[in-house]
Amino acid sequence: MTVLPKAINDLIDELGQLPGVGPRTAERYAFYLLRADPANSWRLASGLQKIHQAVKVCPVTFMLIDKDKAVSPLYDNPRRNKQLVAAVEEPLDVAAIESTGSFLGTYHVLGGVISPIDGIGPDQLHIKELIGRLNQDKVKEVILATNPSVEGESTALFVQQQIKQAGPKVIVTRLARGLPSGVDIEYADQVTLAKALEERQSL
Amino acid sequence: MTVLPKAINDLIDELGQLPGVGPRTAERYAFYLLRADPANSWRLASGLQKIHQAVKVCPVTFMLIDKDKAVSPLYDNPRRNKQLVAAVEEPLDVAAIESTGSFLGTYHVLGGVISPIDGIGPDQLHIKELIGRLNQDKVKEVILATNPSVEGESTALFVQQQIKQAGPKVIVTRLARGLPSGVDIEYADQVTLAKALEERQSL
Repeated sequence: MTVLPKAINDLIDELGQLPGVGPRTAERYAFYLLRADPANSWRLASGLQKIHQAVKVCPVTFMLIDKDKAVSPLYDNPRRNKQLVAAVEEPLDVAAIESTGSFLGTYHVLGGVISPIDGIGPDQLHIKELIGRLNQDKVKEVILATNPSVEGESTALFVQQQIKQAGPKVIVTRLARGLPSGVDIEYADQVTLAKALEERQSL
Repeated sequence: MTVLPKAINDLIDELGQLPGVGPRTAERYAFYLLRADPANSWRLASGLQKIHQAVKVCPVTFMLIDKDKAVSPLYDNPRRNKQLVAAVEEPLDVAAIESTGSFLGTYHVLGGVISPIDGIGPDQLHIKELIGRLNQDKVKEVILATNPSVEGESTALFVQQQIKQAGPKVIVTRLARGLPSGVDIEYADQVTLAKALEERQSL
């Protein structure tokens, strides 16, 4: 497509680097931005320049935080219970749990899941740092809030074993499995329904 | 999601302005860029800043061109036949036709199609300028290369009428309709197959 000005081709190439964005979608984005108010492109450009400058990783919880903060405000906050830790895969999981408004402990971002296929072993995750927090924060309970996927489950199992070795008295829990609210039983998948039966609650 | 650093939320908001990009996809893009080499984000940012600075519209053909050029190189080129004009909807259509390597005329970008629902009438398109080129370039043939959609067809019909009024001797043609190459007849849609039958060629 040497017919188009170089600036447009370059932008299409760059947009095509985004995950799941092919040349067609990249073209669509580029032409949209070209037609829209230039201020949109400028704001997006400035946002892109800021993320790497203004964001860092909390050295304790591995949550993403503003560069001018020492540790995550979710950890620093004296009203949050440091003895209760939710271990999650990614920073967005923290946002999801926070949005429920029903968790007042602290978080630990593992940074992914153990996945031999992708070459990710336990050492690439922040498991050692979680174990370190057990003593340091006198942790009473760790909620393993990894995803209910194969990798999420096996990562949870591995972390559980590590915790049991390091602090046998620490309670290790897992998020409940069962029917999501608003979904009819007839539409629930087999695994979900089996879990919901297995972990049925007495009234 | 006030839990995430402001820089990330801002970027997610900006990415969410792109066509067809919801909050989830915007998050995915933002976290991908955050994890990737910062150089990626910088190149994308610089690409965004350049498009509005480095690109302008050709005053004759309305193709997008580099700002330092006076008119489109596809028009300027003495080897291109100015008496044969392909009228297309968008700049990307020019790129598509050029990629065939089998057109040596010049182009005219209409800038869209007549679409009353979107509030786009003939005056918003560059039809008048196309009519102006008929005399100026002694045009012999105009190929109406708008899309084979309802709007594309009706725009072609309108432009054809305008050309007939202004230059009764100008030949007006339309891109052939029929079976696309590589598609089995059994999978062709009814409209395409009907057109292919209607416009069958003698051997």
